[in-house]
Amino acid sequence: MTRIREVRITPIAFPDPPLLNAVGCHEPWALRTIVELETDDGLIGLGETYGDAPHVALLRRVAPELIGVDPFQTGQLRSIVDAMLGVTDAPDLHGLTGGSSPIKTALRVFATFEVACLDLQGQAIGRPVHDLLGGKVRDAVPFSAYLFYKWAGHPDAEPDAFGAALDPAGIVAQARTLIEAHGFQSIKLKGGVFPPDEELDAVRGLRAAFPAMPLRIDPNAAWSVETSRRVAAETQGLLEYLEDPTEGLAGMAAVAQTATMPLATNMCVVAFDHLPEAVERGSVQVILSDHHYWGGLRQSVRLAGICETWGLGVSMHSNSHLGISLAAMTHLGAALPQLSYAADTHTPWQLGLDVVERPLRFVDGAVPVPTGPGLGVTLDRDMLARLHENYVRVGITARDDTGYMRRLQPGFDPARPRW
Amino acid sequence: MTRIREVRITPIAFPDPPLLNAVGCHEPWALRTIVELETDDGLIGLGETYGDAPHVALLRRVAPELIGVDPFQTGQLRSIVDAMLGVTDAPDLHGLTGGSSPIKTALRVFATFEVACLDLQGQAIGRPVHDLLGGKVRDAVPFSAYLFYKWAGHPDAEPDAFGAALDPAGIVAQARTLIEAHGFQSIKLKGGVFPPDEELDAVRGLRAAFPAMPLRIDPNAAWSVETSRRVAAETQGLLEYLEDPTEGLAGMAAVAQTATMPLATNMCVVAFDHLPEAVERGSVQVILSDHHYWGGLRQSVRLAGICETWGLGVSMHSNSHLGISLAAMTHLGAALPQLSYAADTHTPWQLGLDVVERPLRFVDGAVPVPTGPGLGVTLDRDMLARLHENYVRVGITARDDTGYMRRLQPGFDPARPRW
Ligand SMILES: [Mg+2]
Ligand SMILES: [Mg+2]
Repeated sequence: MTRIREVRITPIAFPDPPLLNAVGCHEPWALRTIVELETDDGLIGLGETYGDAPHVALLRRVAPELIGVDPFQTGQLRSIVDAMLGVTDAPDLHGLTGGSSPIKTALRVFATFEVACLDLQGQAIGRPVHDLLGGKVRDAVPFSAYLFYKWAGHPDAEPDAFGAALDPAGIVAQARTLIEAHGFQSIKLKGGVFPPDEELDAVRGLRAAFPAMPLRIDPNAAWSVETSRRVAAETQGLLEYLEDPTEGLAGMAAVAQTATMPLATNMCVVAFDHLPEAVERGSVQVILSDHHYWGGLRQSVRLAGICETWGLGVSMHSNSHLGISLAAMTHLGAALPQLSYAADTHTPWQLGLDVVERPLRFVDGAVPVPTGPGLGVTLDRDMLARLHENYVRVGITARDDTGYMRRLQPGFDPARPRW
Repeated sequence: MTRIREVRITPIAFPDPPLLNAVGCHEPWALRTIVELETDDGLIGLGETYGDAPHVALLRRVAPELIGVDPFQTGQLRSIVDAMLGVTDAPDLHGLTGGSSPIKTALRVFATFEVACLDLQGQAIGRPVHDLLGGKVRDAVPFSAYLFYKWAGHPDAEPDAFGAALDPAGIVAQARTLIEAHGFQSIKLKGGVFPPDEELDAVRGLRAAFPAMPLRIDPNAAWSVETSRRVAAETQGLLEYLEDPTEGLAGMAAVAQTATMPLATNMCVVAFDHLPEAVERGSVQVILSDHHYWGGLRQSVRLAGICETWGLGVSMHSNSHLGISLAAMTHLGAALPQLSYAADTHTPWQLGLDVVERPLRFVDGAVPVPTGPGLGVTLDRDMLARLHENYVRVGITARDDTGYMRRLQPGFDPARPRW
């Protein structure tokens, strides 16, 4: 029987464009952690997760306890994580995926290892990971074009390949670039950067340029309830959903009362214990799942089952990530009957840089579901080493969009609501 | 790759004691259906389900569509079942597991094949079924002593091995017999047969005889809200939960308002679409899962995940069944962190008769979790043939406790509430 004999945890840093959001700007380097579980029969299961130092420390705390564990025993894995972490709380610093809690912290750690265990399971039995979740119900998983306001390049650096997008014309041009390259068939605009009316102009520009394409905007709760209600009224018929216009379950419920489109969230419902109140208040109609903090692929299946039961739609959230996460999202999305919207992904922003060999790619905006064993991706060890060198060299230990923005605009205030 | 090449559906009948309940009496023969999925590499996956003719007809309608299906593709299986059954509704006749609906009907059919597919999956990869659900979180799954009021034997037949239990002394004696034989460490009394005060005397008799043992009573909604509230008040501190005292989500919610013990159900919440209202009303605090109608093992995992999210306890319901169902319940119970109570089982009432070779057995009231591939049980083909002959010979095509009771007591009226 296959057992884990070594756990390798490698934080990495890779170049990231200056993507703007309600709390600031992506730094020139994005952090991730790559986890490898190696078994005594030489299989290597992969996981990808956040690279913030407190999270990495927790992964390392748990790692030694995994030696000797059978990768099919994810229930036991959960017990190990819970026992090792207790009530440890490692807060998210960037404030874009809701508050933290000891349970969410533990699930974030568990999720990383669970995905790697599922990769091992699939490899051990010669089956794709989606077969461990009931098999695929679709042959390709749709993703959306994820647009960002951005500068032409990081300050003191050359402009990047994407160029600036700071007005409606820039956003529409960016959409064309991403859609041409990847064939996306729906569009999400990260908002919360400019006053809502300017961002609505961009949405209207997208509608004019792409008359049939589903559109979403996500201001990361930068708006008041009143502003959110006004935006919702003005965008009737324009948006497939409105994502996190305002903060909190009560605020979102107040917006939902008058909004005609569904409200989506990856901020006010980010853990199972948020669901009862969200359902009771009617705060949201779509939940953006994210296996990285919901607790892995099987807990994401649980979330989707809850969404179906309460008539909520299911989509997927994304932070800056590489190809292991894209593969995990794709296997999950393949097996989820409830996936009702194209998922978010940051993949295009990495311009093909990846830590895996032959990363999954978009065909007509959707990732064809891998059919080989496990996740179906293999680590590029040279790249892993280089990205780890980046991590050591650049010295960033936590994502800090606000701190970066303040170095450039000292008065920048991410307080919510801004408008 | 392993594919289903043959589906065998065999309805069977086996002797059943005259167990009494709110709607009548178990007939001398209980019905079940045994499903075999045989793959092109010679594996045989087993499922066990209801034997009522309308249900058997639906299984047979779906069966030909399963030829060529990969048993890992249970998502595809679900689509096939849904496509074949459409909005077919095959009502439960016996009225003890809530109303029926097209969705519940489809899930009942799907569940049968899903368990057989999981058995095949486990066999194909050399792993127990619980490993397909995240691995076991316990080494043995606890069951309760399931007591029934009963006659000494069926009319015009010899007394059976259990003898009569028609008063508190009889019930206590029956408890002693079952506990001595199987080591059960909790007790459930099927009530709804005699006026509540008589049944409470039996519960008090059980408490006196087994001072430390958790006790439950299940009158199958035979009581009014008022009676249920009175019983709940009088049994404060006596019951670990009170099961389906009265009918419907509104009635149960009214009882829950004053009851100090949790209310459990396998009648008013028997499908996912019942959960939102149940939660909103606070109707129940424990849900008795039953993979036979909740849609199989993975849907039962989903149910348990919902229960955990909303703070509900999880137990397991049982109808008369044989060893394939016991194995399926045991694998599920092994993998469910949320299983918070000993499960129900009718197993002792079959006196060792089984359709599997070397059926799982109780040790100290719990079934040690099998560790071999698949469900870990093998069909006894001679016994299957004999039980199928019974089915053909006795000519019963649907469970009808009320009809049987009326042949003996023509005025019997199962209308609820009776008290
Ligand atoms: Mg968002
Ligand atoms: Mg019951």
